[in-house]
Amino acid sequence: MSEEISIRRARREDLPAIVALLLDDPLGAQRESAADLAPYEEAFQEIDGDPHHFLAVMERDGVVIGTQQLTLLPGLSYQGATRLQIESVRIAASERGGGLGTVLIEWAIDYARQHDCLLIQLASNATRLDAHRFYQRLGFEPSHTGFKLKLR
Amino acid sequence: MSEEISIRRARREDLPAIVALLLDDPLGAQRESAADLAPYEEAFQEIDGDPHHFLAVMERDGVVIGTQQLTLLPGLSYQGATRLQIESVRIAASERGGGLGTVLIEWAIDYARQHDCLLIQLASNATRLDAHRFYQRLGFEPSHTGFKLKLR
Repeated sequence: MSEEISIRRARREDLPAIVALLLDDPLGAQRESAADLAPYEEAFQEIDGDPHHFLAVMERDGVVIGTQQLTLLPGLSYQGATRLQIESVRIAASERGGGLGTVLIEWAIDYARQHDCLLIQLASNATRLDAHRFYQRLGFEPSHTGFKLKLR
Repeated sequence: MSEEISIRRARREDLPAIVALLLDDPLGAQRESAADLAPYEEAFQEIDGDPHHFLAVMERDGVVIGTQQLTLLPGLSYQGATRLQIESVRIAASERGGGLGTVLIEWAIDYARQHDCLLIQLASNATRLDAHRFYQRLGFEPSHTGFKLKLR
C-alpha cells in the first residue's frame, strides 16, 4: 500500500481537497465551510510563506487523502529545545483504519528528528477517543491537559 | 499593585532571570540548567528574530518576576483562523498567589484579540492542578488531551 502513497508540501491548488478533509469530520463539519475558500486561501499564504510551517498532504495516485500541519516551535524550556507542533491531522473517512494515519504521523516524527526537535506535541479533542488510542500506540503520552479559550 | 507591574518583550539581558524562573518550578528543576546559558541564548535569538513569537517578561521595579511565550499560529482549521499558542508561563515562586498570573494571562488575551486570533490554546502538565483551576477561572476550557512524544 505504501508504495502508492506520497506525502509532500501542500500547494494552493490542493486547498479545496484539504478543506474537504477538514469538513469530513464530526467536529470540522460544525466549523468549516467550503462555500467561500477566500479565508482558507489567505491562511494558506501565511502558512506557506513561513518556513517554520509545513502543511503536508498525503496523496494516492494524485488524489489527496490526508493532511497535517507541522510547525517548528523554538522555546527556552528544556534548555532551549525546539518542538514540533502538529495541528489539523485528517485522513479521508473512506481511507481510515488502513494504517495511513500511522504513515502520516511517522512521517511527522521523521521530520521532527531531521529538524532536531526534542519533542512533538499536539492536542486532541477529548471526544476523539479513537485518536487518543492511536497516538498512544505511536508512543505519545497523554501527559497534559489541553486548554482552549475561544475569543469570538 | 498593578501600577508597579509592567509586561514587555524580553531582551537578551533578561535571559538569566528567565532561566531562573524556568528552574524555579518542580518540573523545570528536573530539565533546566543555569550552568550553561549558550543553548538558551541560541533559542532566544530564534524566538526574538521571528515576529510570530513574543517572549514576554513581567517586571516590578526592574526585576523580572514572570514570563510567557506567545506564538501566532496560522492554520486552515476554523476557516483559516489564527490561534495564539501560549508556552512556558512562569511566575516567581515568591510572587505566586497575588494575582500576577491573572495579569499575565489577561495581557496574553489582549494580545490575541489585537492580533485577531480566534482562540488561545495551551497545554498544562497533568500534575499542575492549581494551574488547571487557574486557567478554568479565566474561562479556558479543558477540552483537549495534550500528547507529547519525547524524541531523545
